[in-house]
Amino acid sequence: MSSPTSTDLLIDLALSEDLGPGDVTSRLTIPLGAQGQALIRTRAPMTVSGLKAVSKVFARVDDQLAVELFVKDGDNLPPGANIARVAGEARSILAAERVALNFLGRLSGIATLTRRYVQAMGPGPSLLDTRKTTPGWRLWEKAAVVDGGGRNHRFGLFDGILIKDNHIQAAGSIEKAIQDARQGAPHGLKVEVEVDEIRQIWPALRAEADILLLDNMSPEELKVAVKETENYFAPLAREVLLEVSGGVNLETIRAVALTGVDFISVGAITHSAPWVDVGLDWV
Amino acid sequence: MSSPTSTDLLIDLALSEDLGPGDVTSRLTIPLGAQGQALIRTRAPMTVSGLKAVSKVFARVDDQLAVELFVKDGDNLPPGANIARVAGEARSILAAERVALNFLGRLSGIATLTRRYVQAMGPGPSLLDTRKTTPGWRLWEKAAVVDGGGRNHRFGLFDGILIKDNHIQAAGSIEKAIQDARQGAPHGLKVEVEVDEIRQIWPALRAEADILLLDNMSPEELKVAVKETENYFAPLAREVLLEVSGGVNLETIRAVALTGVDFISVGAITHSAPWVDVGLDWV
Amino acid sequence: MSSPTSTDLLIDLALSEDLGPGDVTSRLTIPLGAQGQALIRTRAPMTVSGLKAVSKVFARVDDQLAVELFVKDGDNLPPGANIARVAGEARSILAAERVALNFLGRLSGIATLTRRYVQAMGPGPSLLDTRKTTPGWRLWEKAAVVDGGGRNHRFGLFDGILIKDNHIQAAGSIEKAIQDARQGAPHGLKVEVEVDEIRQIWPALRAEADILLLDNMSPEELKVAVKETENYFAPLAREVLLEVSGGVNLETIRAVALTGVDFISVGAITHSAPWVDVGLDWV
Amino acid sequence: MSSPTSTDLLIDLALSEDLGPGDVTSRLTIPLGAQGQALIRTRAPMTVSGLKAVSKVFARVDDQLAVELFVKDGDNLPPGANIARVAGEARSILAAERVALNFLGRLSGIATLTRRYVQAMGPGPSLLDTRKTTPGWRLWEKAAVVDGGGRNHRFGLFDGILIKDNHIQAAGSIEKAIQDARQGAPHGLKVEVEVDEIRQIWPALRAEADILLLDNMSPEELKVAVKETENYFAPLAREVLLEVSGGVNLETIRAVALTGVDFISVGAITHSAPWVDVGLDWV
Amino acid sequence: MSSPTSTDLLIDLALSEDLGPGDVTSRLTIPLGAQGQALIRTRAPMTVSGLKAVSKVFARVDDQLAVELFVKDGDNLPPGANIARVAGEARSILAAERVALNFLGRLSGIATLTRRYVQAMGPGPSLLDTRKTTPGWRLWEKAAVVDGGGRNHRFGLFDGILIKDNHIQAAGSIEKAIQDARQGAPHGLKVEVEVDEIRQIWPALRAEADILLLDNMSPEELKVAVKETENYFAPLAREVLLEVSGGVNLETIRAVALTGVDFISVGAITHSAPWVDVGLDWV
Amino acid sequence: MSSPTSTDLLIDLALSEDLGPGDVTSRLTIPLGAQGQALIRTRAPMTVSGLKAVSKVFARVDDQLAVELFVKDGDNLPPGANIARVAGEARSILAAERVALNFLGRLSGIATLTRRYVQAMGPGPSLLDTRKTTPGWRLWEKAAVVDGGGRNHRFGLFDGILIKDNHIQAAGSIEKAIQDARQGAPHGLKVEVEVDEIRQIWPALRAEADILLLDNMSPEELKVAVKETENYFAPLAREVLLEVSGGVNLETIRAVALTGVDFISVGAITHSAPWVDVGLDWV
Repeated sequence: MSSPTSTDLLIDLALSEDLGPGDVTSRLTIPLGAQGQALIRTRAPMTVSGLKAVSKVFARVDDQLAVELFVKDGDNLPPGANIARVAGEARSILAAERVALNFLGRLSGIATLTRRYVQAMGPGPSLLDTRKTTPGWRLWEKAAVVDGGGRNHRFGLFDGILIKDNHIQAAGSIEKAIQDARQGAPHGLKVEVEVDEIRQIWPALRAEADILLLDNMSPEELKVAVKETENYFAPLAREVLLEVSGGVNLETIRAVALTGVDFISVGAITHSAPWVDVGLDWV
Repeated sequence: MSSPTSTDLLIDLALSEDLGPGDVTSRLTIPLGAQGQALIRTRAPMTVSGLKAVSKVFARVDDQLAVELFVKDGDNLPPGANIARVAGEARSILAAERVALNFLGRLSGIATLTRRYVQAMGPGPSLLDTRKTTPGWRLWEKAAVVDGGGRNHRFGLFDGILIKDNHIQAAGSIEKAIQDARQGAPHGLKVEVEVDEIRQIWPALRAEADILLLDNMSPEELKVAVKETENYFAPLAREVLLEVSGGVNLETIRAVALTGVDFISVGAITHSAPWVDVGLDWV
Repeated sequence: MSSPTSTDLLIDLALSEDLGPGDVTSRLTIPLGAQGQALIRTRAPMTVSGLKAVSKVFARVDDQLAVELFVKDGDNLPPGANIARVAGEARSILAAERVALNFLGRLSGIATLTRRYVQAMGPGPSLLDTRKTTPGWRLWEKAAVVDGGGRNHRFGLFDGILIKDNHIQAAGSIEKAIQDARQGAPHGLKVEVEVDEIRQIWPALRAEADILLLDNMSPEELKVAVKETENYFAPLAREVLLEVSGGVNLETIRAVALTGVDFISVGAITHSAPWVDVGLDWV
Repeated sequence: MSSPTSTDLLIDLALSEDLGPGDVTSRLTIPLGAQGQALIRTRAPMTVSGLKAVSKVFARVDDQLAVELFVKDGDNLPPGANIARVAGEARSILAAERVALNFLGRLSGIATLTRRYVQAMGPGPSLLDTRKTTPGWRLWEKAAVVDGGGRNHRFGLFDGILIKDNHIQAAGSIEKAIQDARQGAPHGLKVEVEVDEIRQIWPALRAEADILLLDNMSPEELKVAVKETENYFAPLAREVLLEVSGGVNLETIRAVALTGVDFISVGAITHSAPWVDVGLDWV
Repeated sequence: MSSPTSTDLLIDLALSEDLGPGDVTSRLTIPLGAQGQALIRTRAPMTVSGLKAVSKVFARVDDQLAVELFVKDGDNLPPGANIARVAGEARSILAAERVALNFLGRLSGIATLTRRYVQAMGPGPSLLDTRKTTPGWRLWEKAAVVDGGGRNHRFGLFDGILIKDNHIQAAGSIEKAIQDARQGAPHGLKVEVEVDEIRQIWPALRAEADILLLDNMSPEELKVAVKETENYFAPLAREVLLEVSGGVNLETIRAVALTGVDFISVGAITHSAPWVDVGLDWV
Repeated sequence: MSSPTSTDLLIDLALSEDLGPGDVTSRLTIPLGAQGQALIRTRAPMTVSGLKAVSKVFARVDDQLAVELFVKDGDNLPPGANIARVAGEARSILAAERVALNFLGRLSGIATLTRRYVQAMGPGPSLLDTRKTTPGWRLWEKAAVVDGGGRNHRFGLFDGILIKDNHIQAAGSIEKAIQDARQGAPHGLKVEVEVDEIRQIWPALRAEADILLLDNMSPEELKVAVKETENYFAPLAREVLLEVSGGVNLETIRAVALTGVDFISVGAITHSAPWVDVGLDWV
């Protein structure tokens, strides 16, 4: 369950911009009351995501439309697979078609690219998303990342602490920043600190950061970082989580994963996923 | 001037999903009232778009922030160029940063890809967008296409007539569909008809369609289509516009342009544009 | 199908202003749960319009109310005819009554006046509406015009090009204005130019305007305009559409129609239509 | 001061339906940044109303526009009078023009018709409006009635008690209905009862109604009603207010006023007021 | 029937702030589709109010949830009583639980405190609420007052006239203020005047105020006020209503009631009611 | 910075319910344009909170009002202290007064009660709020808790993990529930588990819960719990946080604090805080 209003708002906005005062072509050529039936199909291999948006779009345009889903979010589909059948007033189906497909193609594009990254990464760390999402779309896109086998970073500035350069500079020192965060934040939030160079690791550890964000480091630097943090703690277990961000792509992610870090966050899975081709065929 | 509410709504939605109950890290580490100044810079070559969104986002978070723009939408920028300076309460800048950059990176991505298509196409036809836009973003994305040198197709189902298979089938014949559209639609709208095979051209011309949408044809077929329509009319001038859609990419667009058509529409410039990297640096 | 939100918003606004914190009289005199049944009836001859608004108003107040429609939009009804029956919780019917009737009376008033104009005009041209509609009501009022036998002009500033004095002056010349419009607008929009004097016709034709808006001309001037445009083109057919606007009323419209123009637009059918009397009778 | 949101909502709705994705003609012919100045003028004699809406519309489209008002709501103006001057970006003025004039023409139409009724009525009673207003427009239209010299009836079902047939029937008797209303309603509301026949007056008086609504009575019946209520009370003063409604028009209102009633309510001043012609001239 | 939007808006706002991007704990521990059933129970004696809000909250989160109510608003319940049963998807019940209980506990708290005041007051006057309600909650809280046996004062500044010091000072005299109010207000509203000292009573009576608001007077002063107003009128009946406000609490209300006034208004029943403990138990 | 829309929405809702169609008394007695000045003052000792809401309310009603604040949120004030001065159009001040005071009185009531709890608790643990807040008000009330010296628990179901009975039962075991939460949640969230009996502590510790919520335990039980958790870890430091909830009041909180726990959460500071008396005096 997520908050009912924000996702509905985006759907209303989308329908409003596409329908405006109405579908002039269908009004003039399709008789009122004419019934129809159509299949939504893949035209390329894909990991599907956004089925709830599809259902909501059709229902919002005409709550008499019958929508039957043949797959579920996260399924991997070959080209030509049936995703859903929609039946009812033909004008309504045509009015909702483009918006529904635009949601489905974009969200499935994110799930599909996420899966490619997860497969390229191999076992070990978790793949994380970022806050580099399409404004207005964050909940949908974070769900698509999960459908593709990724895992969510914080949803916004409110549900996670991430101390960056400016925060440290404003607070005076990394220790002070971590201490202030720990004392003032909701006590259920861990404290994550961005680290741009190896030598910043020790003060962060001494200040008892829960997570280090290793930003824009090479695999070699990452190996050093992992080793240093392990050395810092008792032999039994490293008591800090390590996250990598910056400049990771499908070619480099395997090498990054092999350094032993816990999390790799990749902005491209949301901000640069091409859509996957889905279409609606009348039957 | 576009309608003031829909674009504002998307910005509110975007800020709401990122800020929620507030930026917990900044609240705890940045002193209330601390001032700051930052530059928004390109990190890659790009055609810029979305500056109005950037301004609106900062103003919505804190109307005391001063935003100075150094470039204008449609400008081509090298990596490292200054786009804007924002100054004021540091907490406000941090609260707005990610949403502002997400707008800018995505819209500039569309403008940048559009420009690449326009350059690959060469002179002759106009490059058009489609309705395959991000739901909720159509106005912004269509503006980005113009910033990149493209031109807009209709904005939705309401401001253009496009007769497709289903409409023809429901109306009974292509002549009947065109006639119904012409008699019932606002008289300022031209009638466009989708044509999937060469043999469908003549009935469309006889029914006096204003525009033919040649869908998924090879350059060879397109050449035939251009020639047939020219033959249909008096030697002086072809009185029908020809638009191509389907399967056009950066490799094929030049060949398509050379067939002599008037418009080439490409969904990828909106639905599959990768973002371009923009960042905010404190000064 | 039109965009679901804008029409719903007007209905919510209307109910909100009438109900506010609730119907104090009914709450105190009608027992909770008391059932009732009522007929909506004409009290004057009318062309009906707005039935969908009536249904939506009752459903929004209480989705348990049963509303049965006996007629459809566009029907011509004598006084005393039954339009609809509504049954259910009596308090709900009373709460929705006035808003439902206010929609119905106003929209049917527009349809009724439109029909009078169409009949007075006689065969030949089409009767068009204008943008002089009640703010917030355009979609409803444009539908009422169609119900009355009229036809819609553009819905707003976005779905039609209409070049007026200021545009020509700003562009530099009528040719430049038309050329700019044709090159920049969505290619499915025709270019219409306002013409206030006969001598402006030729430059507009030379610039290949698609439609001339003949503003505030007498029937004599209109005849000249029709003749001049016919002379301009090949004997076969005039390739420009002619629209008349300004100062047309029920007495003059027949003379205007006989001049041979294609369209006559009349603001009064929306901005000055008196309502028609409809009432709700309990049974 | 009225609630800030509802009137703003109507303005946003109005701008949204007229501007949609933007003013295509102005965008293509008026250079960005071109300045202009225009006068809003009467084209017919009128009582002006709606100036606040005019200001709000221009400000909502572009808060840099300067709007200067030369008159105030309620002023009586001859044809050709200057109402306001607006100056600033030409595109903005054109974008707001039609919506601003549509508000002004409609509201001034109501004020103008109200004034005609007040003048026809002559001294004695007050002219009241009804709930037969344009859905979504009640606050604006009630203000226009005051601008025209009329007075407001209740604003909705919430701020006045009006017992009608159904309420009496449901309550069991007129006495019971009045008693229930008096005991349960906010104690600051008077109790008004609809009376359709002379013989219903006495039970209403015995039940101590504060106001009688004499519905659809002839001037002769009204004279009887006035006399009977005066007889009922002590010679000094009639302790009940009398309101007339139903079938009053410009021809009959003087005769009704002379019967000695306190209030005459007329639906036509809101539901059937033709607009008055106002225009915008560039200077 | 109250206006459908404002109460829905508060519920959406409440769900939005509690759910945000979703219930992270339930998503990870409760299987999708797992069904459950729970009872809402009192944990303290209470007068129940807000059942409609409870139903709406569950329905808004998941319209497949079945909610069965065992009691009705206004019922007095012992600790441990069953209020409602809700059954359906377990995740949905958990998502709605806290918001539903927060509505119920707060509104029942108001009803419960109101009843205590009514009982302490004893027979004679009516207990009134004030405008000192929780912003955004007025309709719900005024309904809770009725559920507890109280009666509503005006709902806002719009549905009642209450002349205070500033109004009198601005109008020039108490007589002028009352006269202005009576002539300009909707004629169904009584005129109430605030009186802070005994000597202000006579001018208010001479100006024919309908109601006197005796503010912050001791029981002794109130007795004088009652006597003076009775003396002013004919022996038969005092023709003015008397309301007391200011400084009334559970200890003093009985003494105030015995002075013979008609109404006692108490802000504490809405602004300082502690919530009553209600909980949800799984079965 | 918090999301700009949700708090604005509550203010709009509040103004809408109080103003509705307008302040009828002021409109009729206060001349349009009359200026005024007023002081907002305490009438009881209090910790102030909600000043931003006060400013926003006045600005929303009339952005020409000048509001000067003399104190800041969190200040402790004696009775009779000046909080703010507002100056401008008298009608505007009266229109905004009640809503502004209702925000201020309620939020200051929460801050004041919170401070009393903090003082009664003494040094050691932090006082936390809960999700038992007024629906629609959470952000404001959580800020008031901070103003009173308390600290915020999670803001909703989205920014903290709290595993309760149902979650454990659905997951199968406490270990499984904790493991699922840790693997699926945003990695910056700690895992908190509710513990109702001492014997549940060990499995929770073994499953490496980050925080234990000790629910409804006596001070004696709490001492045992603290000791057991200390024994579980190395002598150096207990690596789990302990939070107490349930049944803590002003009398018992000191004893609870002395048991050595880290956090005490108290619902009453938000759900049962009486308002504090604030008023507006004209000067």
